[in-house]
Amino acid sequence: MGAISGQRRRVGVAVVGLGGAVASTAVAGVQLLKRGSNRLDGLPLADVSVPGLVDYRDLSFGGWDLHGEDLASAAANHRVLSADQLSETQGDLADLRPWPAIGNAAFCRNIEGANQRLVPSHRAAIDAIAGDLRRFRDGVDGVVMINLASTERWPEDTTPFASLGAFERALDEDSEAIGPGMLYAYAAIQEGVPYGNFTPSLGADIPALLEFAEQRNVPVAGKDGKTGQTMMKTVLAPAFKARSLHVDGWFSTNILGNRDGLALDNPESLKSKLKTKGSVLDSILGYKVEDHLVDIRYYRPRGDDKEAWDNIDISGFLGHKMQVKVNFLCKDSILAAPLVLEIARVLDLAQQRGDGGVQEQLSTFFKAPMVAEGRSPEHALHRQDQNLLDWLSGAA
Amino acid sequence: MGAISGQRRRVGVAVVGLGGAVASTAVAGVQLLKRGSNRLDGLPLADVSVPGLVDYRDLSFGGWDLHGEDLASAAANHRVLSADQLSETQGDLADLRPWPAIGNAAFCRNIEGANQRLVPSHRAAIDAIAGDLRRFRDGVDGVVMINLASTERWPEDTTPFASLGAFERALDEDSEAIGPGMLYAYAAIQEGVPYGNFTPSLGADIPALLEFAEQRNVPVAGKDGKTGQTMMKTVLAPAFKARSLHVDGWFSTNILGNRDGLALDNPESLKSKLKTKGSVLDSILGYKVEDHLVDIRYYRPRGDDKEAWDNIDISGFLGHKMQVKVNFLCKDSILAAPLVLEIARVLDLAQQRGDGGVQEQLSTFFKAPMVAEGRSPEHALHRQDQNLLDWLSGAA
Amino acid sequence: MGAISGQRRRVGVAVVGLGGAVASTAVAGVQLLKRGSNRLDGLPLADVSVPGLVDYRDLSFGGWDLHGEDLASAAANHRVLSADQLSETQGDLADLRPWPAIGNAAFCRNIEGANQRLVPSHRAAIDAIAGDLRRFRDGVDGVVMINLASTERWPEDTTPFASLGAFERALDEDSEAIGPGMLYAYAAIQEGVPYGNFTPSLGADIPALLEFAEQRNVPVAGKDGKTGQTMMKTVLAPAFKARSLHVDGWFSTNILGNRDGLALDNPESLKSKLKTKGSVLDSILGYKVEDHLVDIRYYRPRGDDKEAWDNIDISGFLGHKMQVKVNFLCKDSILAAPLVLEIARVLDLAQQRGDGGVQEQLSTFFKAPMVAEGRSPEHALHRQDQNLLDWLSGAA
Amino acid sequence: MGAISGQRRRVGVAVVGLGGAVASTAVAGVQLLKRGSNRLDGLPLADVSVPGLVDYRDLSFGGWDLHGEDLASAAANHRVLSADQLSETQGDLADLRPWPAIGNAAFCRNIEGANQRLVPSHRAAIDAIAGDLRRFRDGVDGVVMINLASTERWPEDTTPFASLGAFERALDEDSEAIGPGMLYAYAAIQEGVPYGNFTPSLGADIPALLEFAEQRNVPVAGKDGKTGQTMMKTVLAPAFKARSLHVDGWFSTNILGNRDGLALDNPESLKSKLKTKGSVLDSILGYKVEDHLVDIRYYRPRGDDKEAWDNIDISGFLGHKMQVKVNFLCKDSILAAPLVLEIARVLDLAQQRGDGGVQEQLSTFFKAPMVAEGRSPEHALHRQDQNLLDWLSGAA
Repeated sequence: MGAISGQRRRVGVAVVGLGGAVASTAVAGVQLLKRGSNRLDGLPLADVSVPGLVDYRDLSFGGWDLHGEDLASAAANHRVLSADQLSETQGDLADLRPWPAIGNAAFCRNIEGANQRLVPSHRAAIDAIAGDLRRFRDGVDGVVMINLASTERWPEDTTPFASLGAFERALDEDSEAIGPGMLYAYAAIQEGVPYGNFTPSLGADIPALLEFAEQRNVPVAGKDGKTGQTMMKTVLAPAFKARSLHVDGWFSTNILGNRDGLALDNPESLKSKLKTKGSVLDSILGYKVEDHLVDIRYYRPRGDDKEAWDNIDISGFLGHKMQVKVNFLCKDSILAAPLVLEIARVLDLAQQRGDGGVQEQLSTFFKAPMVAEGRSPEHALHRQDQNLLDWLSGAA
Repeated sequence: MGAISGQRRRVGVAVVGLGGAVASTAVAGVQLLKRGSNRLDGLPLADVSVPGLVDYRDLSFGGWDLHGEDLASAAANHRVLSADQLSETQGDLADLRPWPAIGNAAFCRNIEGANQRLVPSHRAAIDAIAGDLRRFRDGVDGVVMINLASTERWPEDTTPFASLGAFERALDEDSEAIGPGMLYAYAAIQEGVPYGNFTPSLGADIPALLEFAEQRNVPVAGKDGKTGQTMMKTVLAPAFKARSLHVDGWFSTNILGNRDGLALDNPESLKSKLKTKGSVLDSILGYKVEDHLVDIRYYRPRGDDKEAWDNIDISGFLGHKMQVKVNFLCKDSILAAPLVLEIARVLDLAQQRGDGGVQEQLSTFFKAPMVAEGRSPEHALHRQDQNLLDWLSGAA
Repeated sequence: MGAISGQRRRVGVAVVGLGGAVASTAVAGVQLLKRGSNRLDGLPLADVSVPGLVDYRDLSFGGWDLHGEDLASAAANHRVLSADQLSETQGDLADLRPWPAIGNAAFCRNIEGANQRLVPSHRAAIDAIAGDLRRFRDGVDGVVMINLASTERWPEDTTPFASLGAFERALDEDSEAIGPGMLYAYAAIQEGVPYGNFTPSLGADIPALLEFAEQRNVPVAGKDGKTGQTMMKTVLAPAFKARSLHVDGWFSTNILGNRDGLALDNPESLKSKLKTKGSVLDSILGYKVEDHLVDIRYYRPRGDDKEAWDNIDISGFLGHKMQVKVNFLCKDSILAAPLVLEIARVLDLAQQRGDGGVQEQLSTFFKAPMVAEGRSPEHALHRQDQNLLDWLSGAA
Repeated sequence: MGAISGQRRRVGVAVVGLGGAVASTAVAGVQLLKRGSNRLDGLPLADVSVPGLVDYRDLSFGGWDLHGEDLASAAANHRVLSADQLSETQGDLADLRPWPAIGNAAFCRNIEGANQRLVPSHRAAIDAIAGDLRRFRDGVDGVVMINLASTERWPEDTTPFASLGAFERALDEDSEAIGPGMLYAYAAIQEGVPYGNFTPSLGADIPALLEFAEQRNVPVAGKDGKTGQTMMKTVLAPAFKARSLHVDGWFSTNILGNRDGLALDNPESLKSKLKTKGSVLDSILGYKVEDHLVDIRYYRPRGDDKEAWDNIDISGFLGHKMQVKVNFLCKDSILAAPLVLEIARVLDLAQQRGDGGVQEQLSTFFKAPMVAEGRSPEHALHRQDQNLLDWLSGAA
């Protein structure tokens, strides 16, 4: 374990997708705390006091985005914050402008006018990201990278991901199998920057990058933030199991109207998303739920408000049928932003403690928790939470 | 710990309220298992294998009820079982006729024509119950008593309950403060019969009877079976706490149309019920939920089907408001009956192990778990379940 | 029919309860229209063009309230309007301050510090109200009175209401049976001012005042605005009837957290409310719904947002059971305020047309529509709407 | 108008898809009435008494189905009827066995073992159907045909449907554009048998067959029975319009597990279905609902029980947003079967009255009401009902 200093620690969070709704909400939230607010609702570890765990108020932010507008404009567009909150953080957020996103010129010719830095190769992209990270490190005690970018399509050819060696070769060849999310992850690991992936994209969740993270002893965690419907699933399913109520079917539908929802109208992106949602139930229950359906629909009237409707058909004693229906009127970014802050804080703590590789104790915040090779993820929320608390207290 | 024999063990369950919907469902369920069914849905401990834990198929039933009809008629009236299940268990259930309920002639003059055995005093009532229990013990290896009778009104004068001595004097004086539920509980403890209380009535949950149970080393547990809405509360509230989502209000309403629901239209009985429902949330969350409302309404179209509707208002990050709505279309007796079987099995095992007094490991099955003096009940379902599993495996 | 001038007509609306959420919302809405908004959502007659029907922008407001704060403060407290709407109407609303409510000093000694004008008798109260109305009439072409005050308790002694003669005597005797709502109604009729009652209080809905209104040929209408749950009932029930789907039960529960909700926590006020809600279903369906339950609960987290949950049990072909559940997340004042504007406009038009007495064509806006003696109210929304459109077009 | 005899009239209903859940439920329902039941729930015209309208008990059934099992077996498989109802109608239903469905050998080679009568051409198919109809007419006073077959795919080439002449030529050429549903419809019209189409398939709803029906003066009606979610839409939307509540979005999802649901998992069939669902809202509201989504998902745990969930986003006064959520737990065949009986009775009455061509008065029973050329369909349920009642009473 690394030595944890008792001194106040400042940490920079480098966000891929800094102009998005989740990131701008997280940044505004930290600014409000810095300005004196003491409302810590939604922050799961608000009551946890552990040496080395950086204070929310000691986080600062930077990051990349294809949209170059400053965060005050971005936050206003996302319509997540209240008028009061927007106006109180206006000055701070206006000062924060995303760095140009890194794009390989060979693949990105079509995107015009965006906030993009074209580079000639994958390797050049990694160098550029690494350079940004090094600049960002100036003036803080540590840096972590969090991926909040839009969901990437699921790659068809996974051969280059099987080992670090294969991945390095694919980098050299500018392989199209390697998406931008992996380049950011690679650069972070290379620079010794802990990496958390809040999206369904693969990011670091491939054998090659896990190998890299272990080799460099860099903490990584992911993937796909567990906020609304899936979070509820991992709360309810353990209870059905505890009561031996058999789940005959689980129909889940979601409506949401933000940029994230629009991206999911793209079947390829949706597929990535559904992949991370699918196996949760079967894993918790210990049997296959034959009729488990998940729909996600882009529905503009909701904006960033997301609504989930779950219908669960269960069989109880003597085979009698019952139904549970859950209707969750939630706010996507409001649920996600505080988790992002916690992930950043825990990744930074892991690095101080000298814990590299997959941080399974962060499973509670992810739909598809990354685990070390050969291990199965824990999905039940209450056990995930216990694991995190145990790790924080040093019991795990 | 007592010695647990490896031999097959047969246990008699003496039910107060044998003709009710829950009891007749439990009896029919066991008969179907005896007849070869292997559907164990709804039985939380179906997969648990622990030495001494009696098999479901080795349970037999007897008990008291003010309605004297046999259990086949009772089950048909309750409309819980399917036509097939009724017809398959018809013969077995028709053989089972409730013993006359015990009534103190001084208080019960008005109830005519019921299946009642009038006795001249509290002491005579206890003797009569004890006699029934001794007769029932014949031919089985153990007996437990489960209270499933209709909810009694909450007593106003609790002075006689403060100590065993005071209670004994109140018995001698035929004090009106002592309800029938306490007489059954007293008789059970006196006879060394483990006692479980699935109703909101006080039963053994008074200092006097806890003292008695400890003195005689008899296992007791209660109170008020946790089946539908409260069960869900103790699943969801820990998750809100884990995510630091502040519960601003929780509105719960229930509609049900069985005998139990009708009884709760009586405000005095309702008060008992609401008492056992009230404190669950605050205990789990660690703060007082200012707007926690619980309604229960008798609504005939549902019969034994019970519907719960919960609306939960929560505040998340930066104080933003969200709502969760849960609509549980459940079947009261179908949820309750298997829990009754588990309580009986665990109480019997506790007695074999020599564990007397309050059995806190059974908390998972109760809305208002009984605890030893000076202790606070655990309400979170997942922790209750863990406690039970630990106790069963001998880890607790 | 009176002669309807083609000239632009300005109408003053004198509101009992001007500082309440509904009134301040209505006033702000008209101000926004005057300031150029052309959003007419929620105004049922926005598309209706009939000679003599006053334009929304030609309405002005005055009225009484026990709370003396100006309408800008009142509106801010009610938290109905958006921040933008509050700020845009701030100036107009700040200029509007309720007149002192009229109170009979014999009954009102306890209310201190309120915005009240104590008078020595019922007759003096009427004179004071009449004086206010005459002053208000200055500078407008017509005046109507709308009752939006908090629900009054239902009177026990209704003898004084049976005829105008009896009522006059009771006025002379300062009878306690006569509540303030009736004094306002009496004063309006006496002054030839059309009177609409949006509350469940009796107001003009007693034989004595109907007689008075007919005698003076003054239009009156009421009672209890039909906004949320009852509106939906009068939409759905006709459909069930058209499809011969038998309604076995209808369970309605409401949660709301505004001043109106708090008043209904008072059982006496609630009784008035439930009276106006009760008979709607049976009247539409043509048979008694055996299990029709209506709950209203004060639940603060909602503020002015009101939530209704309806569960309807229906029997279809061959007696098979089905369920419809309706969850209406509405805003009480947002639904009510535009109806108040329409009632005022139609009452004014009725007066121009020379139509006195009960205005049954306004039934669509009321839970318990007032009808002329011996007639039955129409409750089905689509027929009520047709009746109103027919009356407006002169077809009825 | 034709002469309507006062004598008791017996009518045969020839059903395309006789073995399906709706048909077997309708048949069983009529049998139960014949056997003395007087429960008329779900039959919209049960209280209507009009000369010539055939009594439910005077309907008899025949028809085609690809599945050759008798209706007792079919009904048992569909699991719609209760055990009692199945057993009471067992004898009657066992006597009823579907006629072989007609198939053009040129297109149907793949279907093996089915209950099918292969014929060499479209013309031969029509002849075979016509022969069946003529045989069926024996012993009854009239015959109507109702299409209840599984949804057919929507044809791509509609040229042959534009006129009767073109259609006749396409028949001669065995055009693949002509589906089996059109052949049945053609045969019915040719034989002077009124035709009703309860499915989303085109059936007679093409200019060619409308021309044919008018030429022969045969009543036709359709299409796609309006039972659950769409029925509710046509009830709620007129109310939103009446209250000027602007519909910003309407998200509808359906889960169902019967044969009909499985067929709709086929995207081609689904497209037909969604076509008939789509325009209802816009037509009633008078503007385009930008976000109107309809999902239908095959979800086995429900069987014939169908569940619809609607979320409606509305804007009210001053643009404030509200939501209505409707959850309809319905039974598909239980809602549909009685409508089929009414359609048959009204078509027969139309024929007696001499009314040929499209029967618009039947619009209330259809999602996509057929109308004469150049006319727009009425969708609002209450206006449709009034039109039907007016026609029945002779007022229309």
